[in-house]
Amino acid sequence: MVKSPLQIARESYFPKLPASLKGAVKIVEGNKTESVADQADIKKMFPNTYGMPVITFESGSESKEYPAVKVGVILSGGQAPGGHNVISGLFDGLLNCNKENKLFGFLGGPSGLTDNQFVELTAEVVDHYRNTGGFDIIGSGRTKLEEEAQFDKVIENCKALGINALVVIGGDDSNTNACVLAEYFLQKKAGIQVIGVPKTIDGDLKNEVVETSFGFDTACKTYSELIGNIQRDANSAKKYYHFIRLMGRSASHICLECALQTQPNITIISEEVEAKGLTLDDIVDYIADIVVKRAENGDNFGTILIPEGVVEFVPAMKKLISELNDILAKHETEVNVLDSNKDRRDFVATKLTEESATVFTHLPNSFANQLMLDRDPHGNVQVSAIETEKLLIDMVKARLKKLKKSGDFSGKFGGLGHFFGYEGRCATPSNFDADYCYSLGITASLLISEGKSGYMASVKNLTAPAEEWIPGGAPITMMMNMEKRHGAMKPVIQKALVVLDGAPFKKLDENREDWAMGTKYVYPGPIQYFGPKEVCDTTTHTLRLEQAK
Amino acid sequence: MVKSPLQIARESYFPKLPASLKGAVKIVEGNKTESVADQADIKKMFPNTYGMPVITFESGSESKEYPAVKVGVILSGGQAPGGHNVISGLFDGLLNCNKENKLFGFLGGPSGLTDNQFVELTAEVVDHYRNTGGFDIIGSGRTKLEEEAQFDKVIENCKALGINALVVIGGDDSNTNACVLAEYFLQKKAGIQVIGVPKTIDGDLKNEVVETSFGFDTACKTYSELIGNIQRDANSAKKYYHFIRLMGRSASHICLECALQTQPNITIISEEVEAKGLTLDDIVDYIADIVVKRAENGDNFGTILIPEGVVEFVPAMKKLISELNDILAKHETEVNVLDSNKDRRDFVATKLTEESATVFTHLPNSFANQLMLDRDPHGNVQVSAIETEKLLIDMVKARLKKLKKSGDFSGKFGGLGHFFGYEGRCATPSNFDADYCYSLGITASLLISEGKSGYMASVKNLTAPAEEWIPGGAPITMMMNMEKRHGAMKPVIQKALVVLDGAPFKKLDENREDWAMGTKYVYPGPIQYFGPKEVCDTTTHTLRLEQAK
Repeated sequence: MVKSPLQIARESYFPKLPASLKGAVKIVEGNKTESVADQADIKKMFPNTYGMPVITFESGSESKEYPAVKVGVILSGGQAPGGHNVISGLFDGLLNCNKENKLFGFLGGPSGLTDNQFVELTAEVVDHYRNTGGFDIIGSGRTKLEEEAQFDKVIENCKALGINALVVIGGDDSNTNACVLAEYFLQKKAGIQVIGVPKTIDGDLKNEVVETSFGFDTACKTYSELIGNIQRDANSAKKYYHFIRLMGRSASHICLECALQTQPNITIISEEVEAKGLTLDDIVDYIADIVVKRAENGDNFGTILIPEGVVEFVPAMKKLISELNDILAKHETEVNVLDSNKDRRDFVATKLTEESATVFTHLPNSFANQLMLDRDPHGNVQVSAIETEKLLIDMVKARLKKLKKSGDFSGKFGGLGHFFGYEGRCATPSNFDADYCYSLGITASLLISEGKSGYMASVKNLTAPAEEWIPGGAPITMMMNMEKRHGAMKPVIQKALVVLDGAPFKKLDENREDWAMGTKYVYPGPIQYFGPKEVCDTTTHTLRLEQAK
Repeated sequence: MVKSPLQIARESYFPKLPASLKGAVKIVEGNKTESVADQADIKKMFPNTYGMPVITFESGSESKEYPAVKVGVILSGGQAPGGHNVISGLFDGLLNCNKENKLFGFLGGPSGLTDNQFVELTAEVVDHYRNTGGFDIIGSGRTKLEEEAQFDKVIENCKALGINALVVIGGDDSNTNACVLAEYFLQKKAGIQVIGVPKTIDGDLKNEVVETSFGFDTACKTYSELIGNIQRDANSAKKYYHFIRLMGRSASHICLECALQTQPNITIISEEVEAKGLTLDDIVDYIADIVVKRAENGDNFGTILIPEGVVEFVPAMKKLISELNDILAKHETEVNVLDSNKDRRDFVATKLTEESATVFTHLPNSFANQLMLDRDPHGNVQVSAIETEKLLIDMVKARLKKLKKSGDFSGKFGGLGHFFGYEGRCATPSNFDADYCYSLGITASLLISEGKSGYMASVKNLTAPAEEWIPGGAPITMMMNMEKRHGAMKPVIQKALVVLDGAPFKKLDENREDWAMGTKYVYPGPIQYFGPKEVCDTTTHTLRLEQAK
């Protein structure tokens, strides 16, 4: 491995720790818990892991002897900055608990557990990955552990290795599965504990016990660096509107946080689009209206943030996509023999409901083609592949052309599209994420050593200095409710969407008009590790606003 | 202006200076110079600015009294990190030379000079922009000053303001124009000096007296941060090939430098494509071949760097584009009435030469459509808008499909495209660019105070510590040769393309096979300003390799 100078310098960074994790630690158990909703159903499905108390680790007076354990760890789903620090914290924490402890990494995500692909994680391995981004230490994957046959395979492989506990580093779905696994192992008396760690750059895994998922801080700062750079370019050249789509399919936390960091002219929030029942045309009108007003001030440039998933939050588009999925599955051969995209569009339009046909024929051709042609292996429209930024550029351009004809727009409009996602998922973790993740790892090691299962590691009070952070654990069942998945009701961790009366969205909403018409851009610049505290050690606006009470 | 914490912290950074600029300065003149080629022609066209000596500023023994001057400055062309520091260096330098000196900024690029749009740049203005990215202090623009009527307008506006000298911060074309302006002003005895400053992220303005253009360092480091992050993602998820197109239409310095910083699997260099007379199919075969070999090792992921302008360096594509421009101009109405893209493609194909028709019909439809439809205001194909990364993904995919059928490929291939350009042009300048630009600005103020015109500010010995840098100036005419532009021979600054037997390309070439088959990614991380010297204060691999003799 050729290490960059920054990587070498960061290897010697020792993450800041909560005071309570620095010496002897004692465990403090709170009251019994309930799930956020559907208590009776969840309780019934999780007889062994329901109702457990929230746990806090406090400074203790004497150091404890913990039994030796062998622990397995997996990284599940999309990458998030800080995963390597969860593992290094877990590794150091386990050795602190008992010098005999061992850590194994299962390779390529959950499938490593069923396929029995693993490496032992020794100091020699772990030390190369401290304070680095990426999940490359053991790789990640998206295989779901949902079936009993898989669970039994996991038990078999863990038994063979002598593993007593698993740590699942993942998002809401992976943590739901971790809890199902924990419950199953308890029912089967398999003697394998399961602990989850809250990961996702999307920021939608949070609740009263988990203040934020790791990676959100670094990813948003990386995107905001880029947005700031583009805004400075827009304000220098003064000739383009930059339409910037940001990752985050289910929730718009990334878009909202980046907007608070950079103050762009326009920010679309999916949850607001849905709440207000907006159509694509409404969004286009909203953007075009601001373009027109800025042009009246002589400003023919700007920046617009768009959440990746917004198309699915537009009710009419959601309906159209669902109908298209059915039609294309049913009439696949008929569509495929047609000669041109125009013929295909015309054919499909005849099969849609009147409402959806109107939406469909109204779309720019290239986008309608994309909806027909870009389909996933199950034949469904690939919503995440839709270049919404280009769709909006085309539609805004068409709208402005009409306004120009009617004499209502006399400016210029040039649109440029960007999409940021992969650029931030494996960024070198910020000091915040490096510290937070390392503490989460140590906390996970303590939950294991204390014999807990079905818990998620949690570290709270995160806007205070790390010294004052509060480590602990929360039963995963308390975050669950029942939701429909593939036609059946399932227990799942409730996703945290952007709350429209929450402080972060309100801050955006209050400033919207000012940021739209003025040029109030903020340029955050690249993440810094070695400079002044106010540059290197503050976390997201979202968390600070949420906790400013 | 809401300033980010980093911006506030950077305001108090004082750029590192060459020792010779710290106290009294003396001017040392070298030998007379000649242009790099076409000496007789250039000499004839630049009777007043040809043959002047190279200048060096050295530490002097007594401080000099310079006459008071009023200076105008413009930013010309695409943004590059450090422009604000050229201006702050110029501002501070001018005040050092004479407390009565004044600096005016002409707005929106060269058109500010002809339209007489300006602001006075006082400490109150300049101080807000120290060590920041962007050109927003006075804006930039691409208007060309080429006609005598424009020159006379500039003289008129400068006279009205009492301006004695202009500083043109720009790329090769803008500096050529600066020299034409200098020559014209001398011929007309207008009493206005002109000094150029070498700007461009593309890195193609360099020669024996200008070691690098400013902005190249920061832009490449910003792109390399992103490439590194994407590579870490590729190596974690292990399921995608990322095709990353990078700005740089005429030269591939950015691609080469980013490759040296990040060690991707594949790097395309336009100059090599042209030298070897490669076709698009050759490039596709080269990529597909590596994909196949990596798959044999179980690696179905990778990263590929593509220079923005590569399509224009493929001889057959260059020919096709030129034919398309003619055909579409001649047959515009006939093409426009056709109903579908297929019909348009078929029509156009009949008008092409046989060779170009073969290339055209062989292209993926979406790309052929783009070539027909995306045209600039002059009706020409917009080469810079071509999404070459997507074209190559489509073509590699098609190639691999065939290889799969014939049993020669058994891996998986998923391609994702990225384009980085605007993300780096206005990044916060690295310490190197902040220091270099500030020194360039001071040097420009000295050239003015010494009464020079037709010079480009230069700072040399750039891989040594800033203390040892050598400031001076070089006559712009010495960088010129004659080239065909719009059908006529014109004197222009010779563009520096990637030299295939130069040290930077050789370094890539030597490691190519190793980087292709292995996974030797380097992750540079974000630019740092406050940390250890080796992290914060080294410049590009390109410059270090070029100077390591």
